[in-house]
Amino acid sequence: MYGEIITIGDELTAGRTVDLNAWYAAGKIASSGLGITRVTSVGDNAEMVSEALKRACLSSRFVIVTGGLGSTRDDITSEIVARAFNRPLSANLEMLDKIRCFVKKRGMEITSSIEKMANLPDGATLIHPKGAVCGYSLVEKDVHLYFLPGVPDQMRYLMDTFVLPDILSLCHSVPVMKHRVLKIYGLNEPIIAEKLKCLEKNTGKAVLGFYPHFPENHITITLHGEDASVVSEKLDRIETEITGILGDYVFATENLEMEDVVAEKLTEKGTTIGLAESCTGGLICDRLTNVAGSSHYFQGGIVCYSNRSKEDLLAVRKETLARYGAVSPETAREMAKGVRACMKTDLGVAVTGIAGPDGGSKEKPVGTVHIGLSSENDLFTQQYRFRGSRTQVKLNATMMALDWVRRYIDGHSIIPGI
Amino acid sequence: MYGEIITIGDELTAGRTVDLNAWYAAGKIASSGLGITRVTSVGDNAEMVSEALKRACLSSRFVIVTGGLGSTRDDITSEIVARAFNRPLSANLEMLDKIRCFVKKRGMEITSSIEKMANLPDGATLIHPKGAVCGYSLVEKDVHLYFLPGVPDQMRYLMDTFVLPDILSLCHSVPVMKHRVLKIYGLNEPIIAEKLKCLEKNTGKAVLGFYPHFPENHITITLHGEDASVVSEKLDRIETEITGILGDYVFATENLEMEDVVAEKLTEKGTTIGLAESCTGGLICDRLTNVAGSSHYFQGGIVCYSNRSKEDLLAVRKETLARYGAVSPETAREMAKGVRACMKTDLGVAVTGIAGPDGGSKEKPVGTVHIGLSSENDLFTQQYRFRGSRTQVKLNATMMALDWVRRYIDGHSIIPGI
Repeated sequence: MYGEIITIGDELTAGRTVDLNAWYAAGKIASSGLGITRVTSVGDNAEMVSEALKRACLSSRFVIVTGGLGSTRDDITSEIVARAFNRPLSANLEMLDKIRCFVKKRGMEITSSIEKMANLPDGATLIHPKGAVCGYSLVEKDVHLYFLPGVPDQMRYLMDTFVLPDILSLCHSVPVMKHRVLKIYGLNEPIIAEKLKCLEKNTGKAVLGFYPHFPENHITITLHGEDASVVSEKLDRIETEITGILGDYVFATENLEMEDVVAEKLTEKGTTIGLAESCTGGLICDRLTNVAGSSHYFQGGIVCYSNRSKEDLLAVRKETLARYGAVSPETAREMAKGVRACMKTDLGVAVTGIAGPDGGSKEKPVGTVHIGLSSENDLFTQQYRFRGSRTQVKLNATMMALDWVRRYIDGHSIIPGI
Repeated sequence: MYGEIITIGDELTAGRTVDLNAWYAAGKIASSGLGITRVTSVGDNAEMVSEALKRACLSSRFVIVTGGLGSTRDDITSEIVARAFNRPLSANLEMLDKIRCFVKKRGMEITSSIEKMANLPDGATLIHPKGAVCGYSLVEKDVHLYFLPGVPDQMRYLMDTFVLPDILSLCHSVPVMKHRVLKIYGLNEPIIAEKLKCLEKNTGKAVLGFYPHFPENHITITLHGEDASVVSEKLDRIETEITGILGDYVFATENLEMEDVVAEKLTEKGTTIGLAESCTGGLICDRLTNVAGSSHYFQGGIVCYSNRSKEDLLAVRKETLARYGAVSPETAREMAKGVRACMKTDLGVAVTGIAGPDGGSKEKPVGTVHIGLSSENDLFTQQYRFRGSRTQVKLNATMMALDWVRRYIDGHSIIPGI
């Protein structure tokens, strides 16, 4: 069963806002085994919105619409729906009650622009009438239309809790579509494509997709079928084949991020870690602490941006900095050892480099990064040269440092191929 | 002059990839004074792509198309264009040369799937024929179509360097459309809308937009006209009026982020700063070091996730932690003083809290955050209660801490209204 998504707002067509609502809704629909054929974004323009709504109704079973339900002047979705489908607006009393309640609770005053939000097209059914946040649905000539607010949290909540179950209830039999994502770090797309060429002939009806997600590359495997367990089994087989070819460059499947994988491994082994970050500026610590429960293994980090902080906090020797510079294997080594000592952890990981755009030289161009890892028995450093903007260099260095931890705990060689 | 954007790829309609290409292209077009009426995303489906292309040609002067130009099986854009506009494919020799050169340089082998990329529809003109990356353009019945790769960096480069100038050259007179964004932190949307209600009547033809960007709110002012200086003047007047009403809740205009504003102020005053981060886990340091040149004012930070690291590195007293807990004004105060001392900076800023989802209690629920600021003469702390997910709490606490620095340097009271 197929549907469409329409997102409304000048902020979208003017490129001021990234369309995360379309992305979210499409992802939810796809992972339920249904399909989205088209996503249309139009500005707060009655004619364009009306055209998009009517066109979507011609070829889809369901349409998810977001945006334009708020209280400001540019929120015109309901008026357009009323005209497009000849369904006059009138005050929905349930909605009016909700709005009044909400406003009162927050100690705000009710205004005509807020009350306007309760004017809904004829035949509209409130979605989540008991909640603080709501949208509405309509059935227009057998097409189910869902109108949701554009505020991402509200939209997501209503999508997950009400819209998706409602759409699935329209299916006669729940279709089987399974999808898997393999995340790869350290191999570029042409190399991946070449390595997997032999595979493409053997995957039958599975659709393989290749997607760069800087600095990662993702491979998706999509498979349709009638029997869930047969589809799962085939998917497993293809996944095993791919990981067999790409080896430990595949760092995660599905929604896991590199930091989730690292967190899992650290927790499993009971290994603690401390970070010394220079050019990454705290990003590695930030990523690690995005994982709930990180306090079990993460003691802390030192963002040692200045040379003085490297000396004072990590006991990097003045002579090392003077002789080799802050961006050098020697400094990376002392930082890794220093942070391990001061945090009293099993592992100490250090990153020092030149994120740019300034600060590069002929010998040490922008993007030069040294990573160091210290444990009771080992001490590694390695130089990298990352390309791209300041934030891209930070991101790549962060991924590489986390990947080192993943590989070290797994007992693999840290630098692939060496 | 108006145009459309079409983005192609199953990853978009399946919600695996956020459509940053549409966002980028739309933003570039809008900031040049032109408009995008519609953004359409379709999967790797010949029929849907063809329909979108033909429809866009009916009502637009230009169409920007991204995706489907690569070497993998699902890259079918050129074949579809060939059929939709009856322009048979043939090998473009210039393109073939480029591809062979590129492949050779990288030490890769040429394959038929890579060579396929050189097959272009009749009448196609290469965009950037001398570069490593390229796309092509076509003129179909006076509509200018631009086909660009889906890889964001490549697409952006070609968009900025070739496509945008080409589109602007189609305009008889360069139109005047000016746009301004005001960024607000610390006021919610209904309050902003209410405060600005009086204003809406006096803004003439200016279009005001309100956009939540968690945890910020953005107001956009858009104004069209014939004379650039008149439009600018009007825009300035409206901006002044809005900032007059909202005061220092407006922290930035245009593309500046909170960290850019803070960086500018720190640099201007020659003030140095050190950070002590517990629940924000390094995010404040990360944000500050995203700004080029941050080493001028940013000495470093301590991500003191464990109690021991708070004691060892920041000299927070054991008794303070035992008596009041890590999430308390007392600890925030000692952290701020401690980091200022150990980093030897003018300002020390500390954040300690419970980001969740676990770790909350009745007295200290998830989202409880204490911020502290220490300088030579002052020592402030304040408790907040942020709502949302773990990453939202981290983000809000980060914004609040940066906002404190902004306000402190400006000499405003740190906690608005107190």
